[in-house]
Amino acid sequence: MLAYGDRRTSSYDDLLETLTSHIKREPEALSVKTLNQNVVEAEYAVRGAIAIKSAAYQQQLKEGKGDDLPFDKKPITFFRQVLSLCEYRELLDNELAAQIYPPDAIERARQYLDGIPGGVGAYSESKGAVVLRKQVAQGIEARDGHPCDIDNLWLTDGASPAVHYCMKSLLRNEHDCILCPIPQYPLYSATIKLYGGTLLPYYLEESEGWQTTLDNLRVQVGTARRQGKQVRAMVVINPGNPTGQVLDRDNQELLVRFCKEEGLVLMADEVYQTNIYAEGKSFVSFKKVLMEMGDDCTTSVPLVSMNSISKGFFGECGRRGGYFECINFPKEVKDQLYKLSSISLCPNLSGQICMALTMNPPKPGEPSYELFAKERDDILSSLKRRAVLVKETFDSLEGVSCTTVEGSMYAFPRLTIPPAAVKAAADQDKQPDFVYCMELLDKTGIVTVPGSGFGQEKGTFHVRTTILPPESDMQAVSDKFAEFHKGFMAKYKNQNGSK
Amino acid sequence: MLAYGDRRTSSYDDLLETLTSHIKREPEALSVKTLNQNVVEAEYAVRGAIAIKSAAYQQQLKEGKGDDLPFDKKPITFFRQVLSLCEYRELLDNELAAQIYPPDAIERARQYLDGIPGGVGAYSESKGAVVLRKQVAQGIEARDGHPCDIDNLWLTDGASPAVHYCMKSLLRNEHDCILCPIPQYPLYSATIKLYGGTLLPYYLEESEGWQTTLDNLRVQVGTARRQGKQVRAMVVINPGNPTGQVLDRDNQELLVRFCKEEGLVLMADEVYQTNIYAEGKSFVSFKKVLMEMGDDCTTSVPLVSMNSISKGFFGECGRRGGYFECINFPKEVKDQLYKLSSISLCPNLSGQICMALTMNPPKPGEPSYELFAKERDDILSSLKRRAVLVKETFDSLEGVSCTTVEGSMYAFPRLTIPPAAVKAAADQDKQPDFVYCMELLDKTGIVTVPGSGFGQEKGTFHVRTTILPPESDMQAVSDKFAEFHKGFMAKYKNQNGSK
Repeated sequence: MLAYGDRRTSSYDDLLETLTSHIKREPEALSVKTLNQNVVEAEYAVRGAIAIKSAAYQQQLKEGKGDDLPFDKKPITFFRQVLSLCEYRELLDNELAAQIYPPDAIERARQYLDGIPGGVGAYSESKGAVVLRKQVAQGIEARDGHPCDIDNLWLTDGASPAVHYCMKSLLRNEHDCILCPIPQYPLYSATIKLYGGTLLPYYLEESEGWQTTLDNLRVQVGTARRQGKQVRAMVVINPGNPTGQVLDRDNQELLVRFCKEEGLVLMADEVYQTNIYAEGKSFVSFKKVLMEMGDDCTTSVPLVSMNSISKGFFGECGRRGGYFECINFPKEVKDQLYKLSSISLCPNLSGQICMALTMNPPKPGEPSYELFAKERDDILSSLKRRAVLVKETFDSLEGVSCTTVEGSMYAFPRLTIPPAAVKAAADQDKQPDFVYCMELLDKTGIVTVPGSGFGQEKGTFHVRTTILPPESDMQAVSDKFAEFHKGFMAKYKNQNGSK
Repeated sequence: MLAYGDRRTSSYDDLLETLTSHIKREPEALSVKTLNQNVVEAEYAVRGAIAIKSAAYQQQLKEGKGDDLPFDKKPITFFRQVLSLCEYRELLDNELAAQIYPPDAIERARQYLDGIPGGVGAYSESKGAVVLRKQVAQGIEARDGHPCDIDNLWLTDGASPAVHYCMKSLLRNEHDCILCPIPQYPLYSATIKLYGGTLLPYYLEESEGWQTTLDNLRVQVGTARRQGKQVRAMVVINPGNPTGQVLDRDNQELLVRFCKEEGLVLMADEVYQTNIYAEGKSFVSFKKVLMEMGDDCTTSVPLVSMNSISKGFFGECGRRGGYFECINFPKEVKDQLYKLSSISLCPNLSGQICMALTMNPPKPGEPSYELFAKERDDILSSLKRRAVLVKETFDSLEGVSCTTVEGSMYAFPRLTIPPAAVKAAADQDKQPDFVYCMELLDKTGIVTVPGSGFGQEKGTFHVRTTILPPESDMQAVSDKFAEFHKGFMAKYKNQNGSK
């Protein structure tokens, strides 16, 4: 073997060096200047500067208090029992374990492991283990009253992979656009940027409780087309994140028809489907809407519906589990999605199992049902009370208004920020709502995300806050927030906006 | 709100339609023709046609027999005990559980959960929970004798995310190249294609036990530069997949110096680091090599070292756990990697915990040590025997030669395929080794991957086979393989290659 510095023939290498000496090489092996600039330009607000600072605080305080970290919430016992049994198969036939675990948890774990010979430690099919996909399909069928073919179903590590696969597949260059609601969950803006496409915004109407209106959609698509853009897909988040609205069925049908007319893929982010709080509101899946329209749309609008174990009453976000279902996708396109999923080999098995459990929880009459139902109802009714409290708190503050938190886990109140504060933020080259949220964190430890991270109509300012703090702390958190807000307003109110 | 079909003003919409009518829209909302062609063109051989057919067979046979699915291997008891306890926190203080679980497993689970307030169900830091990253760092320090800063460490869902992050960040367009060994693990070719770059091959020398020689590297880089390409990084897989070699330390130093000279990032795929079988061979991490060179390289060559829980003696592949460590990465570049990891929120917690366990297993004197050491040694010594048996089997066959399986989990024997079989394959528009592997599957149920999926020198043919079948079945598998091979050779030998 040649050692380093040896040359095959010196004349050969001399020639090579002469030939190649004019080629410009990057001056450094690795610098941010020579990275893919789509990566550098992508932003992800929910894990941005404020989340990082909050994590640093948490590290100091050794206490958990963060966005999307529902620390007060105990997990659903039945789910954890099954998962614990699946981890350690020996427990299934252990007499002591039979005294710890209820029989239906043992039975369920046995059913899953029988269907997954390698257990939680072996790769499954890239779309997810068949026994678990069947359980998810059953849950979807029970929800919608329409069949679900497991061939259309992918289990995933959270809902994010579906978004990555779709963006990666649909976006060919910067002329390809994805219609996104504004405000939106920043996963969409981040992935569209990462994969080199263009986000085409459509503004939700705050004055109409964040419903979607068609006029804005039509104008945006028309403008984009005039600029030579191709509009590929439309993202709808229902219930809304960060906006908390639940779409009316009429509104959903309009959106499906719009996708039909404009030739768009409908990407339905339905991860908050069990988080509905407002009276008279209920979740209807886009699949159900599509299936029941009974016209051309039913058989032709491509729909991808996403779900997750991270939300709902279970909130198993650290486990990373989710699924997506494709409707009206050509087989060849599904083959490509299958290939993309196979490049990650398979989603993690405990996430897959948890997804199956959430879609097929204990049923009335089964030993674990009573406890399961109590845990579920306690959490959902508590979230409902918190949703009301959060809105009331914000509405009581000067210069703040908040739409009803109909669903999901967030409130997105609008702030009237005094001109002096806007000016002060501009002087720091920051957004006013960013400055507000950072001061809030520094003074109170309360973590929020500035509205600018989700997008908002120009000249308006918002913060996103969760309804997840422990209910026992909610009043104290509200009081602290209110006190901070009064101080913030007082500090800037009497300034005139110039230095 | 406007209903569908309502118009803001008819003249406005008429105008819009006139203006936009010339814009060409895609004829279908979704078809493979209008997808990103990098997605369509990406290939992933280990989950290709043969794996799919094998999965179909498995479904029929209801038995496990597949590539990378070590079904005979019992998991490491201690790891599963800790994971099971972490899933169901109530067990930590349960008296019956104290009779099932050894005290050090309970203690370890308590330590982890104390450090992760939300447990396995809450998001952790995007780079992984601090308590777990510290454990991994300790394991790296014990392995190398050099400090590991947890700031340089990311826990991940398997080793793949590190590859995705690097390719996504480094590749700006098709002029950016990544040097990849050929044969290579197809994750590299797939991700380079997906992210729009170019794979620059360097051939491993089969006649030298698949070591790397510099002359080929130099020629390839020179040729690429002459064509205006930028070479960004070099992938090294050690121990090799699919080739099973363990690099000599001298060879590793050469490669580091080459990266220094050429300004490349060194991507070290070290997922088989505990799978070493050959006498006199041992694993030395590229980090250790780099740290101990003591020259410019030590402080300037950017290195990313990847590891995984999917391999080794634990083989927890379905759980999806891994880590990568960055050395000599500028802070600004690490910030970008952090952002990319944050877009996926966090790696799954059970994978993180398992990664920490594999890097910090029970120590001598602890209650679980004896069983742990026995389980580890049994598996590794069995794999070692299988590595020898597989090589001997292949060497005994006519027209087959196999390099020593020094490490990893694979053999990559070379086949001399008769001209008539090459011709028959060409007639089906297939690679000859693909046809060989498909016939092997159909006739024997043995799953292999054709060498063409990994890349091989033109005119040579290989198959990749694992050493993972249960040891008790190995002889029977070998016999079946040998019988098939003889039949295949006999069938084509006496044909002259033309119809």
